[in-house]
Amino acid sequence: MRSPLQNAVLALLLEVTGTPKPGNVDRHREYEDLRFEHFMAGASGSIPGLALAADSGADLGHAFEQSVAGMAEQTAGNTQFGALLLLCPLVRTTVQGELTPRRTETVVEATTVEDACAFYRAFEHVDVAVDDPPDGLEALDIRRGPDAEPHLRDQGYALCDVMELSREVDGVAREWTDGFPRSFAAAEWIATEDGPVSNQTSSTFLRLLAEEPDTFIETQHDRETAERATEQAREALDGERDPETLADEFVERSINPGTTADLTAAALFIALERGLTV
Amino acid sequence: MRSPLQNAVLALLLEVTGTPKPGNVDRHREYEDLRFEHFMAGASGSIPGLALAADSGADLGHAFEQSVAGMAEQTAGNTQFGALLLLCPLVRTTVQGELTPRRTETVVEATTVEDACAFYRAFEHVDVAVDDPPDGLEALDIRRGPDAEPHLRDQGYALCDVMELSREVDGVAREWTDGFPRSFAAAEWIATEDGPVSNQTSSTFLRLLAEEPDTFIETQHDRETAERATEQAREALDGERDPETLADEFVERSINPGTTADLTAAALFIALERGLTV
Repeated sequence: MRSPLQNAVLALLLEVTGTPKPGNVDRHREYEDLRFEHFMAGASGSIPGLALAADSGADLGHAFEQSVAGMAEQTAGNTQFGALLLLCPLVRTTVQGELTPRRTETVVEATTVEDACAFYRAFEHVDVAVDDPPDGLEALDIRRGPDAEPHLRDQGYALCDVMELSREVDGVAREWTDGFPRSFAAAEWIATEDGPVSNQTSSTFLRLLAEEPDTFIETQHDRETAERATEQAREALDGERDPETLADEFVERSINPGTTADLTAAALFIALERGLTV
Repeated sequence: MRSPLQNAVLALLLEVTGTPKPGNVDRHREYEDLRFEHFMAGASGSIPGLALAADSGADLGHAFEQSVAGMAEQTAGNTQFGALLLLCPLVRTTVQGELTPRRTETVVEATTVEDACAFYRAFEHVDVAVDDPPDGLEALDIRRGPDAEPHLRDQGYALCDVMELSREVDGVAREWTDGFPRSFAAAEWIATEDGPVSNQTSSTFLRLLAEEPDTFIETQHDRETAERATEQAREALDGERDPETLADEFVERSINPGTTADLTAAALFIALERGLTV
């Protein structure tokens, strides 16, 4: 039986294997400077960090930072930052008992200021697209990296508090604060479908995107573009649009629903832990 | 820096990422019952076994058997048996010092009867296409699995002796007995090319196939088919044939140069250890 570490690696691999996933790098589509092979290197690079996530004796923030440091050992920069941020607490929950939303919340709530500091250090390893922080929170701008540490310690912010602060603008942070509702729901969709996992991944991605505007698109473009992408994903689900054509169009316009891809990886991990057969 | 274990996993992933690799499963082509996703699961499944290969305290044969057992935890059967058989001694050589043909030979020569027994047990985990053994060697038919053990012990056959017995019919065994000449040569080709690793993988595969008939094709079909495939690979290299068309044709006729793919994975590992950038 595959261990939680192995399933986390496999979830990263299956996520990028699924095609079409409009706007994402997948098996059949890539950007010139962000290619499929970079996701392979990112997944292999994250193994030692994910092994720490599977080790209850290691700080969760440190496990995440190491996952990102390893992931970043390829030339394309950020490939799976958000996916790893979701996978680390899910892996930790799994090694401690049953993988449920409630128990995942407990793992999240147990995070500390040390975890928050490690989270900020992770941004030193890789450029991640983020917006300016809200007014009054400039001291916590993640682009400050380790420079934010004194403020984090002063205020006693645990990693779960940091996530709470960005829940409005980041779909990954929202999963952290809300007990991973979309990841667990999407895992159910995967579990009830038949056929190649690649196809299930593609349709799960489309359903997630059709459900809510992608916060990564919003950061890279604007709210309107994100909402329009969600509308187009709905049309694809309803059969009014060819998802392959939509994929070409999104790649052409650099509309990359990265948060939706992160959620898809988290859902795949949960589904694998619950017995999804590949 | 990625560890030898991580580079071995990455080599498996990059091998199947390279496209076109005529006749193999790759990013753009798959068989109905042997899909790209099965190779992702095979690579992730082999992590604990490859970790044993990277641990000089573990028997190399046991490391290989565990790699295969983990690889086989997906529904398509044999995905990377031969590649793992090449990677295990290469990983072991790497953790013990410089990765050279001579030092790899030393690792091979140090294998024992225990390693041979573990090798035979590996065939219990997965169906591997093999021919009947030569006359007089029926007792060593690998399809006998652990039943061959008494004979192995009687004769004092180490794993390197077993490989010697099949060197005429199996390109992977030949690498074992000859100091991995084709793997090391192909690693040099990869190192001297520019551009996406996926393209380098594809052209390395084609060069290897053009160089020698694939023993896996010979086992599954016959010598003539293997020789014809090599001729066609040569024509593709010379620009007389479109490798994409050749890929479609090989898949159509189930001509799968599996040994050439195994060698490509071994070459990728050596290239990664020598600094290939992804």
